[in-house]
This record gives sequence, C-alpha cells and structure tokens, in this order.
Amino acid sequence: MKLLNRVLKGDVRAAAQLIRSLEDDVPEAVAELKDVYLHTGQAYIVGIAGAPGAGKSTILESLIDIFRKGNMKIGVVAIDPTSPLSGGAILGDRLRMQRQGADEDVFIRSLASRGWKGGLSKATMNTVHVLDAMGKDIIFVEAVGSGQGEVDFARIADTSIVTLIPGLGDEIQMMKAGIMEMADIFVINKAEREGSDNLRMSLEAMLSMTPHQPNTWQPNILLTEAILNKGTEQLAKVILRHKDFLISSNKIEKCRRRRAELELTAAIESTLHHHLETMSGCLLVKLIDDLVLRKTDPKSAALKVINLPEQK
Amino acid sequence: MKLLNRVLKGDVRAAAQLIRSLEDDVPEAVAELKDVYLHTGQAYIVGIAGAPGAGKSTILESLIDIFRKGNMKIGVVAIDPTSPLSGGAILGDRLRMQRQGADEDVFIRSLASRGWKGGLSKATMNTVHVLDAMGKDIIFVEAVGSGQGEVDFARIADTSIVTLIPGLGDEIQMMKAGIMEMADIFVINKAEREGSDNLRMSLEAMLSMTPHQPNTWQPNILLTEAILNKGTEQLAKVILRHKDFLISSNKIEKCRRRRAELELTAAIESTLHHHLETMSGCLLVKLIDDLVLRKTDPKSAALKVINLPEQK
Repeated sequence: MKLLNRVLKGDVRAAAQLIRSLEDDVPEAVAELKDVYLHTGQAYIVGIAGAPGAGKSTILESLIDIFRKGNMKIGVVAIDPTSPLSGGAILGDRLRMQRQGADEDVFIRSLASRGWKGGLSKATMNTVHVLDAMGKDIIFVEAVGSGQGEVDFARIADTSIVTLIPGLGDEIQMMKAGIMEMADIFVINKAEREGSDNLRMSLEAMLSMTPHQPNTWQPNILLTEAILNKGTEQLAKVILRHKDFLISSNKIEKCRRRRAELELTAAIESTLHHHLETMSGCLLVKLIDDLVLRKTDPKSAALKVINLPEQK
Repeated sequence: MKLLNRVLKGDVRAAAQLIRSLEDDVPEAVAELKDVYLHTGQAYIVGIAGAPGAGKSTILESLIDIFRKGNMKIGVVAIDPTSPLSGGAILGDRLRMQRQGADEDVFIRSLASRGWKGGLSKATMNTVHVLDAMGKDIIFVEAVGSGQGEVDFARIADTSIVTLIPGLGDEIQMMKAGIMEMADIFVINKAEREGSDNLRMSLEAMLSMTPHQPNTWQPNILLTEAILNKGTEQLAKVILRHKDFLISSNKIEKCRRRRAELELTAAIESTLHHHLETMSGCLLVKLIDDLVLRKTDPKSAALKVINLPEQK
C-alpha cells in the first residue's frame, strides 16, 4: 500500500517513515508531501513556547492525559533541543514514547535542532502536515526560547501559549521580541515558587496597556504546577474555549489564511533557493560572463534566472 | 540630450540627477540604469572601511590629491553617516565639495544612511555604476563600521582597505566579522598615537597565522597620519601595486566575476520582492484561498508565483 494511504489511516510507522524521508529530502517523499497537504487542515494547532526549564514538556504530558480522556487524537512536534521529549533527537531522529508511549493515538515526534533555525522551519511544518493527515485532532508544537524566531512560530498556531516561570525574568526579552503580543494564553508554571504573584501582576499590567476591543480574545493568565497536574485541567478548558471563540467569531478562517500565507512565502523562498542551487551551472556561468562583458545588466540577468519554466 | 549621453561625457549635473532619480526609484531612471551598466567596467574600485573617527575621510582627501597629480579621474561614494564627506546626506541628498570642490574631475557623492543597511546596498552599487559610466578611473567606496555588512562591502571592491586607529580595540570585532580576512591593505591611521606599534604587531601576528601562498597577495600594513599627509603617498603606491598584481596575476577577472555574481544575487532578490509587492493582489488572494481549501499545496502555489512572465 502506498505510504500516503497508510498515513491517512493513522499508521504510526508509515508516518514516522514519511517524516524521516522528508527530513532527508528523499524525492519520493517530497513528491508525496503535495498529496499529504491536500488531506490536511482538520487539526487544531497549539503552539507552546517558553525558555528551557519552564516546564513545557511537563505541561504537555499533563495536557495529553486530559485530552486523551476526551478521546482526542494527539500529535506533538517537539523542537526544543533541551526538552526531555525531543532529547532523543540528538541521539538520532526517532520516536520518543514517554508515559503515553503505549498509546497508538498519541504520536510524539521530536525534531533535531537542525530542523529549527527560527522562523518557519520547513521540517516543523512538514511534520505538522503529516500528523494532520494522520487524523490528529490537536497538534502541539513545542518551541524553546523567547526570541524573534518564536514570533513566526506563534503565527502558525491557532492557539499560542507562552510559558513563564517566576524569577527567570525572561518576560522582558519576550516582550521585546513581540512574542507577548502573540500569546493567547499565558501560563505561569512552577507557580508555587516565590514571585509568581509578581509575575502575574506584571503580565496583567502589560495586558491592560492594550485596551480590550469588543469581539477580540482577551489573553488569559493561568497558574500551574504541571508536575502535580495542578492547573492543567483549567488550561485544557481555556484552550478549548479559545478554539470555540475562534470558530464562533470566524477568526479561525483568519488563522488558516495567515498560515497559508506563511507557508506560501516559505515555499517561494525555498523554491527559489532550490532553483538557484540546482539550475544549470552553465547558465549561471554564462550569465555572469555576460555581466562581466557588459552584454547584459543585473536586472535583465535576474529575470532570466527567476523566469522559471513550468514544472510538472 | 539624453541623460545617459550627458553622463557618459562626464557631466556632473546629469550624473547627480540620475543618482538622485535612482534613489527615488523614478521609473525612467531605473530603465536608464540598464544602459548605464553596459558602459561600466572600466573603473577600479577601492573600498575603505573602518570605525567612525578612524580618519577615512581624511585619508581619502589626501589620496584624492595624490591621484589627481597623476591626472586620474576620481569618484567617491561616501556611506558613512558620521563622515564629514557624507554629512551632507543627512541634510538632503546633494553633492558635497570639499577642498576638491572646484575640481570637475572629482565627483563625491554622499548617500543618506537609509541607502546603507549593510550587505550590498542597491543605492551604493547604482552610484558606483553611474560614476563608472562617467569615466572615473578610481572609485572609492567609504563605509563605516566593523560588522558583518562590511564583509559584503569588501567583496565588491578590487582593493579593500581596512582603517584602524590605536587604542580603539575594534580589531577583535572586525576579526570576528571576517573583515580582516577581506583586507588587502591595513592602514593604521593616527599612527603618532600610543599603541600603534602594538596594533601593528598584533596585525602582523594575525597575518602570520595564514601561511603565505605563492601567487597570492600578502596584505600590507601601513602607518599614516593622514591629517599631515604622512604615509598616504605610500598608501597610494600600494593601492596601484595591488592593482598591478591583480592584473598581472589575472585575478582582476575573479574580482569582476565575484562582483557580477553579487549583483546578480542582489538583483534576483530585489526582482522577487518587487514582483511579490506588485503582483496582482487577486492572484495572491486566490492562491491563499486555494491553499486554505486544500485545492493546491504550498510548493505548487509557489511555482505559480515565481514563474514570472517574460518582461519586456
């Protein structure tokens, strides 16, 4: 049976194989990706960002247990190289099965950090698409850090969660990077620690600077102790409430268009790079010859390069 | 008479007008640029980089006097916003004539800092082309700073000069950015200051780390006090010696190919951006619609975007 058909039936091995082949740029897999994409768009995508040690993986494990009780199929793309979930990626790309390891309906895929250079990583999106095509209801994308890269990352998610812990002080850096504005939900994890009230108050102060508009989502601030599963039930509820809000306000359409636009931009850049790398060396040499001899000008030469022939 | 014809005759006003129109993206000027380019390739391009206050402008003024004695026609593109040469750019784009102001064969053009964002600035290269087409023998491109941007900048020059002064300690930063490796000539200006010997020795130590290959240029280290015209005669000689070396070793061809390649890459990027900005909003919306509805995939959509029609 074709790999795609097995993926569409939710076959874990087939999905893992396809993801691996995509990472390795195997031509057959890349060709199959087109068909995979046509079967996506059903999954709900939740991004979870935060500094290393903020407890993102622990929160995810707790959330997975909760959503599994509701019989939802879960996918996780872990791109935090320091995360226990993706730690395995350093040892070679493979599946990591934690306490949900035996559950066929939880698929956790860790990407080596090479797949994550900030911005919209091709490997991340490809993996999300495969999980989506597998029929996952919710796909969590876990990203480490608080920098500019996380902003693009947050833009692909339907719900963006930013995880903070008291005393780390990385909220200033996140604010500068603009990630705070992207967050739909703030989670203050390890809330038993000193300083969690101060952190909550400073987040509230920050949020109050933006006047609440009618028919917009007012970001929530939740306190959790994920290791004890405290607060995560509430978090799961707020995620679903945000999803309902997006659907009822028709903003989910906006998320999807934004994602499509980001993917189109990424695909244009990637196609151009690929084209430049693979185009006939002779043509490129010829164009540079012509430029050196002033038989043509850079702009006219550029138009010859990016006037791509129709690719079948 | 057509602007281009006047430029080709060395008309200062026509050149200034064309440069200004190119900066303002006036369509007629952009169209004329193609023909301008076909008349370039004769000028020798010398880059001079260094931190603000290193004395680049003073060195240039001294060099201009020297080369003028040899009756060479000189162009200067000053892109250092702190430089007295380009200071005028802040007050509006206009010609600055210093002590060479009365000399018709010295054309100094300052670019507003908006024209310089690091990397290969389009405005810089356009101005170089106009000066080249005017018939300048040597074009100096002056850039401030010691960062990554200066590396690309050095790559467009036939001879790259890096200017240092004792006690500033910016050589470490320059080394990190890779600009030290790009330098053909090091100038230690304000050499009367304490620490110039130490700076020379540390440069020599750095250079000795790269074993000298036969038929390669060994970078020179020169000491100058440009304000007193000390050492600049020697600098002018070394510039011409480096030019002779490039010609006799046929490496000048390599410089020209490298420049053509950089310009081609810049033109491809600029054409693509322009295309994306100006392409039919309808087509883009339609493609995003199709993506959202999964009628197509990002890669196929991207190929529709960058499959540019032949532009006449």
